[in-house]
Amino acid sequence: MQEFYFELLKKDPQTGGRLGILHTPRGDIHTPAFMPVGTQATVKAMTPEEVEGLGAEIILANTYHLYLRPGEELIRQAGGLHRFMNWHRPILTDSGGFQIFSLGSLRRITAEGVYFRSHLDGSRHFISPERAMEIQVALGSNIAMAFDVCSPFPSSYAAALEDMERTTAWAKRCREVTPAPEQVFFGIVQGSVYPELRARSARALVDLDFPGYAIGGLSVGEPKPLMYEVLEYTTALLPEYKPRYLMGVGSADCLWEGVARGVDLFDCVLPTRVARNGTALTPWGKLVVRNAGYARDFSPIDRDCNCYTCRNHTRAYLRHLFNAGEILGARLLTLHNLHFTLNLMQKIRDALANGSFAQAKELFLGQYQAQGSTK
Amino acid sequence: MQEFYFELLKKDPQTGGRLGILHTPRGDIHTPAFMPVGTQATVKAMTPEEVEGLGAEIILANTYHLYLRPGEELIRQAGGLHRFMNWHRPILTDSGGFQIFSLGSLRRITAEGVYFRSHLDGSRHFISPERAMEIQVALGSNIAMAFDVCSPFPSSYAAALEDMERTTAWAKRCREVTPAPEQVFFGIVQGSVYPELRARSARALVDLDFPGYAIGGLSVGEPKPLMYEVLEYTTALLPEYKPRYLMGVGSADCLWEGVARGVDLFDCVLPTRVARNGTALTPWGKLVVRNAGYARDFSPIDRDCNCYTCRNHTRAYLRHLFNAGEILGARLLTLHNLHFTLNLMQKIRDALANGSFAQAKELFLGQYQAQGSTK
Repeated sequence: MQEFYFELLKKDPQTGGRLGILHTPRGDIHTPAFMPVGTQATVKAMTPEEVEGLGAEIILANTYHLYLRPGEELIRQAGGLHRFMNWHRPILTDSGGFQIFSLGSLRRITAEGVYFRSHLDGSRHFISPERAMEIQVALGSNIAMAFDVCSPFPSSYAAALEDMERTTAWAKRCREVTPAPEQVFFGIVQGSVYPELRARSARALVDLDFPGYAIGGLSVGEPKPLMYEVLEYTTALLPEYKPRYLMGVGSADCLWEGVARGVDLFDCVLPTRVARNGTALTPWGKLVVRNAGYARDFSPIDRDCNCYTCRNHTRAYLRHLFNAGEILGARLLTLHNLHFTLNLMQKIRDALANGSFAQAKELFLGQYQAQGSTK
Repeated sequence: MQEFYFELLKKDPQTGGRLGILHTPRGDIHTPAFMPVGTQATVKAMTPEEVEGLGAEIILANTYHLYLRPGEELIRQAGGLHRFMNWHRPILTDSGGFQIFSLGSLRRITAEGVYFRSHLDGSRHFISPERAMEIQVALGSNIAMAFDVCSPFPSSYAAALEDMERTTAWAKRCREVTPAPEQVFFGIVQGSVYPELRARSARALVDLDFPGYAIGGLSVGEPKPLMYEVLEYTTALLPEYKPRYLMGVGSADCLWEGVARGVDLFDCVLPTRVARNGTALTPWGKLVVRNAGYARDFSPIDRDCNCYTCRNHTRAYLRHLFNAGEILGARLLTLHNLHFTLNLMQKIRDALANGSFAQAKELFLGQYQAQGSTK
């Protein structure tokens, strides 16, 4: 069995960009990489075969959702998450911390863990850091995230301090749990937008010697320049030879900027979620295919795109499918948007490999219409 | 360009079964054939490539739906329905008669045509027999159905007579319209469950010399034995060397029984519709994958099925997908159900070819749990 380790192939001389390979027992992940999100053990609207065909080398699944439905015991009985969903490459599971945090009034955080009510049926649950890791052990993911407390934006210094200290205390407890075979745990840096808190968080987690680190508490509604700033000083606090994962980021501009600041892994529901709303991602920004203006537009979403959707279907047809509420519309746009995002990561890796990353980034962002904030 | 003609290859000596090839300018259709339904220019949840991969040689689309949305003019501008939806094999369009008939209080039938309100927005419309054919000419389907009046079940003799006579009068008007290139018109026999009316309807339509004939007014809620009885005496009224199409039929038992009574073409939403409700078709009847009993059933729907779904996914996973409202559930069951139905037609053709149809039918129906009525 191949061991889990991160191979740093090349550092970009002009930016913080890094080219690498995250070796795992389930196969290599060429970084920087984007992880499509398969919240409920399915990348929405796609077969695992299609996701692999699009070039994804790792996907993300959600512990919170799978714990509630169908339950981790059922998945353990199925032979683990890979067999349950028929995806045989690496899987990263988040710890559920962010989803439970997002429940708002439905949850109460104590030093011991989190009491919450299910968003599905209101049933009562309690998850401790130990329990969060045990669930992920049952799921059998390859990267399991520590159970953290995500600070919202904005957060006061005092509140961010408390969240960060709890995250640190919980990270120590998570680290005590024995991972599944073929599994490692990543720690999550918190500290909101406060450099001192990020530094304390990073230092404590580095002491715990996790095989990788995530930067949490970003992409929660802050302005993008602020996210880039926090990212810049936070990645600098992390060990060079460990992978870095920016949680919840997936718009094209943020991917370029994240890579430029030393990020190796990304995940985001954006490509799949906006697809189901009738929005296509393109090199010049978002294209809302539902719009009436495309009713008689018999050209593809993007003439230069070679995905199945762009090779076979027109904007007019896609608009009709959305108008008529047809499943095929969601499928075709999901396919296009994942292709766009995974293909973008390939372009980023190529640019890092041939030393043109800074120019390629400038070129891309010059034509791209970005949105203002991270949410 | 290959002409449209029906080649009768073989007649079953023990039943009314027929093996044939319906040659069309868009390719051959091996009969008896099942046509997957693509109501709104998409076989729900499937790409055209997948539908073709499952072995479908012709699909059906709905004039009523496409007339309302996106409109036949837009489809004409797109280069016709084949190009619009990227399906390049034959397409049959129904005339919209059945859908408008199903609108109930929203429609009024006169000698001239039908006044109706859209089920989408309540807007007022009028469709005459000529208009129904003109819309199908704009769509550019390969088989366009005459505009008919479908008698509900039950219908009094007087009502069925009136519907049948109107259908005949309209068929004459439809026949006057010039078809699109690569297109022929089929007539529709009405007459409810009255042998005399079926005979008069068939005689009048045969006089009009349509290239093919549909049997309408069946599969509208009557008991199955009654449908078989009507079918038996109606197909006997039709010319041997023209294809016969039983509208709205697609359950496994009805396919065998229909073929045994001389039917060459079938269509039905059943395989795709029940799929989206979480029901799988199998050789032993329906399997409701949503049921709690399958929660921990890690076997495929049907061990002997070689479709993508059965080769790759378990009942437990499918149940989870439906439970969680995931699109992939609808996709995987649609794929399985279309495979089941198209594969069944292949088995029927093979049995006709090697002279074992009657035995194969008995064997199949012996293990199959059928439902009692046609709806």
